[in-house]
Amino acid sequence: MDPSQKLSQSWDANAQVWTRAVREGLIPSRKAATDAAILDAIRARAPKRLLDMGCGEGWLVRAAREMGADAVGIDGSEALIEAAQKLDPLSDYLVLPYEDAAEDPDALGGPFDAITLNYALLGETIQGLLATLATCLTPSGAILIQTLHPWSAADGRYEDGWRTEDFSAFEGEAWEPMPWYFRTLASWQRVIAGAGLRTAGIREPAAEPGAPPLSILFVCERT
Amino acid sequence: MDPSQKLSQSWDANAQVWTRAVREGLIPSRKAATDAAILDAIRARAPKRLLDMGCGEGWLVRAAREMGADAVGIDGSEALIEAAQKLDPLSDYLVLPYEDAAEDPDALGGPFDAITLNYALLGETIQGLLATLATCLTPSGAILIQTLHPWSAADGRYEDGWRTEDFSAFEGEAWEPMPWYFRTLASWQRVIAGAGLRTAGIREPAAEPGAPPLSILFVCERT
Repeated sequence: MDPSQKLSQSWDANAQVWTRAVREGLIPSRKAATDAAILDAIRARAPKRLLDMGCGEGWLVRAAREMGADAVGIDGSEALIEAAQKLDPLSDYLVLPYEDAAEDPDALGGPFDAITLNYALLGETIQGLLATLATCLTPSGAILIQTLHPWSAADGRYEDGWRTEDFSAFEGEAWEPMPWYFRTLASWQRVIAGAGLRTAGIREPAAEPGAPPLSILFVCERT
Repeated sequence: MDPSQKLSQSWDANAQVWTRAVREGLIPSRKAATDAAILDAIRARAPKRLLDMGCGEGWLVRAAREMGADAVGIDGSEALIEAAQKLDPLSDYLVLPYEDAAEDPDALGGPFDAITLNYALLGETIQGLLATLATCLTPSGAILIQTLHPWSAADGRYEDGWRTEDFSAFEGEAWEPMPWYFRTLASWQRVIAGAGLRTAGIREPAAEPGAPPLSILFVCERT
């Protein structure tokens, strides 16, 4: 099985433990800084309509709705969307693999003032999806990408390539290892520009001032 | 003396040892990757007219001229411009402190197809100068900023602030310590955007594939 397929499959395989980890706040970096960072970035755009792409079990859709946004969640994993709908039957959730989303912008139901990708661009081939999402923005809209910080996550090899997350930093239970594609900063910049977007802002959330960044957050607008 | 004044002064104090270090190739990171990176970035823009801001003893002006560009060098240090002119009497060199350049774009003699700042933005207050330089570009022109990589240079404190270069990694001789202002990636992005520029490309030169980047190089175009 190629890493892209294995990545998709791992979300279904980990759906239950993942849902529990998110809902019980078991991921230290998320509690320390990165949840707050994506929420701040959304708040700064004050979106009326928001799409959370790769929404998983739906926490960000629920949070965006609490901020007053009309929020939609899309994910490729049926099991995660089921979990999202069960907790939040009133929001719009949709099962849609990224490959299909990249080919069919109409299925996404835009335009949106903000599209979030919160640790949701973990594959190798993402420029097509980003370019499609760019066409689903309102003129003043933004795509907010939060992801692993290339410098903190490099782990001694600073070059693009597949890596494996074994979830050893996560609490207990049986996790299925997940392949993910490491990108350097230069590579992220190329993909963003290649999708017809420009980086209007960068945030580097950390647990405290001066500490190594726990993530990187790109605020992307259409060029 | 405040760090900005001390920074300017250190260039004059170190002019002789600096000139020797550059001309005899004594700075390992420059030989390993960063000289080639700025030259590649210039080549990619194929500039007819180039301004090297903070040109020091002039090596990049000489190299750009060898590539066929009409190259001008400006620096705040009289001693370094003297060294530049002595080796290369035919090129245009000008002593001009950054504060004066920021206030008087006409003094710079634009428009330029490329403006290089090769380890030449080491102070705290740089947005005004960058904004002025942006007005000196041709419509398709670019500002090329190569500087210390925020990740490699953080040294355990990832936040903006004055640091001190003691030149201990450099060979022999008596160096005067130089204050320089560390900037996070997010801070660089803010300064670049604040100057009316957008990052069209990022390069992260390294000694070999996968090795930690030795510098970061921003290719900036007008928004």
